[in-house]
Amino acid sequence: MPSDSAPKTLPGALEPAELRARVLALAEPADQALEDTLKSHVPYIEQVSRYIIFSGGKRLRPVLYLLASAAAGRQGQARHAAIFEYLHAATLLHDDVIDEAGLRRGRPAARTEYGNDAVILVGDFLFSKSYSLAAELPDHRFVTALTDCTTIMAEGQVLELLFTGDFELDEANYRKVIEAKTAVLIAAACQMGAIAAGAPQATIDAFYAYGAELGMAFQMVDDALDYVGTEHEFGKPVGHDLAEGKITLPFIHAREHCPPDERPRLLELAEAAPTNPEAAAQAKEMVRRAGGVTHTFERAWEHAAAAQEALRPLMGPEPPSAEMETLLAVAPYVVQRRS
Amino acid sequence: MPSDSAPKTLPGALEPAELRARVLALAEPADQALEDTLKSHVPYIEQVSRYIIFSGGKRLRPVLYLLASAAAGRQGQARHAAIFEYLHAATLLHDDVIDEAGLRRGRPAARTEYGNDAVILVGDFLFSKSYSLAAELPDHRFVTALTDCTTIMAEGQVLELLFTGDFELDEANYRKVIEAKTAVLIAAACQMGAIAAGAPQATIDAFYAYGAELGMAFQMVDDALDYVGTEHEFGKPVGHDLAEGKITLPFIHAREHCPPDERPRLLELAEAAPTNPEAAAQAKEMVRRAGGVTHTFERAWEHAAAAQEALRPLMGPEPPSAEMETLLAVAPYVVQRRS
Repeated sequence: MPSDSAPKTLPGALEPAELRARVLALAEPADQALEDTLKSHVPYIEQVSRYIIFSGGKRLRPVLYLLASAAAGRQGQARHAAIFEYLHAATLLHDDVIDEAGLRRGRPAARTEYGNDAVILVGDFLFSKSYSLAAELPDHRFVTALTDCTTIMAEGQVLELLFTGDFELDEANYRKVIEAKTAVLIAAACQMGAIAAGAPQATIDAFYAYGAELGMAFQMVDDALDYVGTEHEFGKPVGHDLAEGKITLPFIHAREHCPPDERPRLLELAEAAPTNPEAAAQAKEMVRRAGGVTHTFERAWEHAAAAQEALRPLMGPEPPSAEMETLLAVAPYVVQRRS
Repeated sequence: MPSDSAPKTLPGALEPAELRARVLALAEPADQALEDTLKSHVPYIEQVSRYIIFSGGKRLRPVLYLLASAAAGRQGQARHAAIFEYLHAATLLHDDVIDEAGLRRGRPAARTEYGNDAVILVGDFLFSKSYSLAAELPDHRFVTALTDCTTIMAEGQVLELLFTGDFELDEANYRKVIEAKTAVLIAAACQMGAIAAGAPQATIDAFYAYGAELGMAFQMVDDALDYVGTEHEFGKPVGHDLAEGKITLPFIHAREHCPPDERPRLLELAEAAPTNPEAAAQAKEMVRRAGGVTHTFERAWEHAAAAQEALRPLMGPEPPSAEMETLLAVAPYVVQRRS
């Protein structure tokens, strides 16, 4: 584990084994719901869908939906938790085509197995599947929350594309991108859990805020690990963001805070990174030395703390429910995870 | 105009100028609604979306939504008519990536202007936009009809992909593909019009059946024109289906009905078509000679007649409303159109 994040703790942490057990207890029904709802008249679609969905994802989003709904008063159905995994899988499929990814979760990306064409269409199928499930709930805010979310997600992914290769990208625009491409889906999973529970609007908003902060922390850690993790730990190649021209917080911080005479060299290496692995490795090393990774973990810890803070207004004098306790514990977990 | 379709008429035809005027009167508010609702926080998304949406589409689907809702008792809002144009545009964008299309509606396809990556994501944005608008209606059947439709559409497009290059594709599977990839969206536009009008279930089902038959006719004519039209008339290259390994009804009929000793030659030419334009032209000529185009127009006329038939139970002894009259007249128009 890199030292950057080891010393920090947040209140409300559970023993890692206990947290894992609680999360697994909800990931299982979510998995079962995915099994049950993943039906198509075209067997090939099931095959491609299963390839991406049953390849060891953490089920973070469905678990958050189930936790949030239970913490808000009434646990939602596992089949609606599946919405968030379908949506996540759909964006992964389209992302992999766009990034020309070779690996995903430690094995060949679906597109290398089934081709870009099938992967684009199966992505569309999974999008459709998630809206289909969301339309089952009578509360109109449920499906509307989902469509608001996917609209922003698509915008975020286009923004990310536009900023690709823009080595002058600043932190404000970086935040805009990760909020839209990652945080809003995690926020929607929590928000929609509260909607499904029939919670009042203030509670729904608090869960949205929790998820949004958690999502920011989650993506920042992803971006930091890209500069430090190993491919083996992480299940996909690391150090690839720069090689793909993706500018993330570790780089932005390093660019702004490295010794001024090193800055031109860093930019030069970053520009060369897409075609020159040696330059990419050197840039990565410079980013680490300039504190880019440490800084990113610090920002991630702030968002994790803000996630916990968002839930505070919902807690009375009595001890929190088990689900609330788990949600609080997920915040530091998201920063401490190494994969 | 090829002789294949000229002699046929169906009851209830309007003068072409009158039909055009009625359709334009509804296409205009649909266009305005597209202008009004096509907003994004990312200007680039608006730019790509406008490129595909305001490139001279016929607005067939929004117009059918408005006609069906009015014929069913209460005309729907133009902003909800926009749903079907967004959805159609999203599938065109993804299709063009898959087909590696160079032209669309007589000008460079969006993907050649903006790149595959942006086009995939803007397609996702437009899908999301259409669900977003559909979620505005309180009747839950509205958004459910849309998600049912898009799930089948994605399945149809995957089926089409799987059958690409399958020169033994039979008519039953061809029908399955065009029903799923084309007819269900046109059916949904009509069905959802009736839902928005608050019509009884039998009326909703009748409009669905009308749209489904119309959609079959529409796609068959598209497939026939690919063997006879000119690029100039049609706005996209013709004779391309075979060059892309897409097996459609004209070819299937020719394969089954050409003189038995010509069959091996036809298959040989079809196999060579993707890389050999001369072979493609010869295959096209053989298909025409074997009656493939005539047969396809005949089938299309049958579906157009069935579309009219589907509306008959809704008509009482009094003369049909102007909208019902227009819907009846759209059926032969769909077969007689040359672009």
